[in-house]
Amino acid sequence: MARRAVAELLGTGFLLAAVVGSGIMAERLAGGNVALALLANTIATGAALVALLLAFGPISGAHLNPVVSLGLALDRELPWSELPLYLAAQLAGAFAGVAVAHLMFGNPPFFASVRARSGPAQMLAEFVATFGLVTVVWSCAKWRAAATPYAVGAYITAAYWFTSSTSFANPAVTLARAASNTFAGIRSADVPGFVVAQFAGGLAAALLCRWLCNVPAAGAAQREG
Amino acid sequence: MARRAVAELLGTGFLLAAVVGSGIMAERLAGGNVALALLANTIATGAALVALLLAFGPISGAHLNPVVSLGLALDRELPWSELPLYLAAQLAGAFAGVAVAHLMFGNPPFFASVRARSGPAQMLAEFVATFGLVTVVWSCAKWRAAATPYAVGAYITAAYWFTSSTSFANPAVTLARAASNTFAGIRSADVPGFVVAQFAGGLAAALLCRWLCNVPAAGAAQREG
Amino acid sequence: MARRAVAELLGTGFLLAAVVGSGIMAERLAGGNVALALLANTIATGAALVALLLAFGPISGAHLNPVVSLGLALDRELPWSELPLYLAAQLAGAFAGVAVAHLMFGNPPFFASVRARSGPAQMLAEFVATFGLVTVVWSCAKWRAAATPYAVGAYITAAYWFTSSTSFANPAVTLARAASNTFAGIRSADVPGFVVAQFAGGLAAALLCRWLCNVPAAGAAQREG
Amino acid sequence: MARRAVAELLGTGFLLAAVVGSGIMAERLAGGNVALALLANTIATGAALVALLLAFGPISGAHLNPVVSLGLALDRELPWSELPLYLAAQLAGAFAGVAVAHLMFGNPPFFASVRARSGPAQMLAEFVATFGLVTVVWSCAKWRAAATPYAVGAYITAAYWFTSSTSFANPAVTLARAASNTFAGIRSADVPGFVVAQFAGGLAAALLCRWLCNVPAAGAAQREG
Repeated sequence: MARRAVAELLGTGFLLAAVVGSGIMAERLAGGNVALALLANTIATGAALVALLLAFGPISGAHLNPVVSLGLALDRELPWSELPLYLAAQLAGAFAGVAVAHLMFGNPPFFASVRARSGPAQMLAEFVATFGLVTVVWSCAKWRAAATPYAVGAYITAAYWFTSSTSFANPAVTLARAASNTFAGIRSADVPGFVVAQFAGGLAAALLCRWLCNVPAAGAAQREG
Repeated sequence: MARRAVAELLGTGFLLAAVVGSGIMAERLAGGNVALALLANTIATGAALVALLLAFGPISGAHLNPVVSLGLALDRELPWSELPLYLAAQLAGAFAGVAVAHLMFGNPPFFASVRARSGPAQMLAEFVATFGLVTVVWSCAKWRAAATPYAVGAYITAAYWFTSSTSFANPAVTLARAASNTFAGIRSADVPGFVVAQFAGGLAAALLCRWLCNVPAAGAAQREG
Repeated sequence: MARRAVAELLGTGFLLAAVVGSGIMAERLAGGNVALALLANTIATGAALVALLLAFGPISGAHLNPVVSLGLALDRELPWSELPLYLAAQLAGAFAGVAVAHLMFGNPPFFASVRARSGPAQMLAEFVATFGLVTVVWSCAKWRAAATPYAVGAYITAAYWFTSSTSFANPAVTLARAASNTFAGIRSADVPGFVVAQFAGGLAAALLCRWLCNVPAAGAAQREG
Repeated sequence: MARRAVAELLGTGFLLAAVVGSGIMAERLAGGNVALALLANTIATGAALVALLLAFGPISGAHLNPVVSLGLALDRELPWSELPLYLAAQLAGAFAGVAVAHLMFGNPPFFASVRARSGPAQMLAEFVATFGLVTVVWSCAKWRAAATPYAVGAYITAAYWFTSSTSFANPAVTLARAASNTFAGIRSADVPGFVVAQFAGGLAAALLCRWLCNVPAAGAAQREG
């Protein structure tokens, strides 16, 4: 139990360090080319997810995301009694990861972001991003657990680019990024909208997947192309 | 059956959202550097394919492409009676995905593309791109079903660059991209040529693969280098 | 037997189409930034190798390279009687792939390269590149056949950048690229030096690996970190 | 035993050749854009690690890193009696790899770096980078040995960007890069600080992982998301 909490804390911490730290490095080096900075930020984040999910998956499941933990609790894959510990570990890890990233680059541990991310288009984007993430996690967890790290890493790599919000898709990540006035930051006033959209997207996906994934995989696997 | 249709619809929808959405984001941020924009578009599309094929493969086979569904029907991997449903779901999903991508970036749901993509060189490119895609899918489906998502994602990543058409290789994708006047768009007048070349390439590959893949894999696997 | 030859021909053809085609596309779009062009060329080539080795590996072993075929013949993994057919198919496929790439981009099928690639530093680079490639193929073929496509794709992705020659490492590829006056071309006068260095590197690796890989994998696998 | 030493020597040699060689190539081609140069350097290094760990893992475990060898000795995965040989082979391989990279690009075999990399932020970065690396290696070695090459390659890909030091995380690499006055170099005066931080991070991770990974993987794997 304590091990699972530490794994969630460490995993979410390294995830946030990767997101925020690579954003700082990318912005410093990119000479104003935002596409190049986002590309570096994307590759670092996707690769970090693959490594962290491979490393911490066998210990805690490596949710690293309150929406995923909640979804798996709804699916009875995670006991409800463990949910509060998972959420607390994820939040603590997220803020610790931001602080470590800042210190590695000579910044103060926390400084509030002034970067605006709002409006209905970005809210829709967070709904879509989280809907897709939970669908991918749910389906893989059911039929291809060993491939989940690659699926999640690949999904987030894509979602950084195909959503106008660059796909936060994670309330712990969103809250912690409000404490970082860097490339990856978000104004604290915009956090609630993002979080609401994320839980709505995750809930919609959970409802759908409960029906969608309720099939035997056998025959389907052979048909796979 | 309904589940399979929903999986094809969702999968093709997310695929189009990824192709069109990442194209919009990439063009906005790249400051006129088309190579950089296409690189971001490529990485997002390839990664999306890996995630979507891993997630939806066990449910519907994750064809996400009328040429693939037709090819697998010719190979008797997909019952002919299910083909119309697959095609309808793919088309509906493709247009829904384009609309969602547009809305996420504050555009109208559909607006006709004016981007010219024509001429014999691009027709040849679509023939080659689809020929290669169906060959990869067919061979992997026969011997390495678990690796199909990685093979298809890698193939399209390469084909975005080695074909002059950036490798649509998918009639549902082609039709839906005509409704997007963005980086990934195609003029509606150019759609028929692309679609004809795609079906021709897919048919040629299916005829070849029926002969080429008709061997026992056993000894071959050991010889593999 | 005919199937194996066709698989080698198709595989090498698509490999060359990927190398040459993506080079043309990258140079056209990169606006003079050679690093960006090479990055796109690299990603397309590495991804193509993963897809092609996954697809054609179960049929012919997917050598796609005379040095690899020769090395496997030395290791008795490929019967000597099949070697001439493999080499002929690879050469024919390589030139066909170059022609298809050129036609897809509106060029003549063949036009001699004037790009100089010579000197002892580049000869050493081809020796090292091919030595590494054969070592990776040999070791994976022995212990991790299923991972060979990923290992080879990753190796070439790296070798495009860490060798001064951009790592041709393949005599069929080298000969065919002499017929392409594009980003990926090589002056025909420089081909013999490259080919000699490649066979020397491959032979050195084969001699080493015969000794190096002559151990039981059992205990080693557990020690793996 | 000799085979294991040669495998460590070759593997570390190719790793250094990849790091230093791709840095030279990237800096030459990038036209002053450091973000683009680091992106190419990152992709080459991450891909090289995947290929090298797949190839040499079954022979020697492919540690390629004194901190990893020491950590596995502490975990009794590597006999203490073999540790000196591993360290010697890694150091010799690292310097050989630097020399080969330099010769491939027409430079002298060794020339001392003047690139400053110092200060508490970079020391913290090396501590964090090595802590994460050892944690990933340790957990994967215990539960997912076959996925270790992908996890390590992905981790270093991310860590190049999320640490201010670009994540050396390897004392043999650090020492050898002091002999390279190129993109990847480090001033010899800054080496001791890096090495101390690396051993400290590795030791902290080893202590943590001995407790963290002391659980049965069974139930956890099913919970994985």
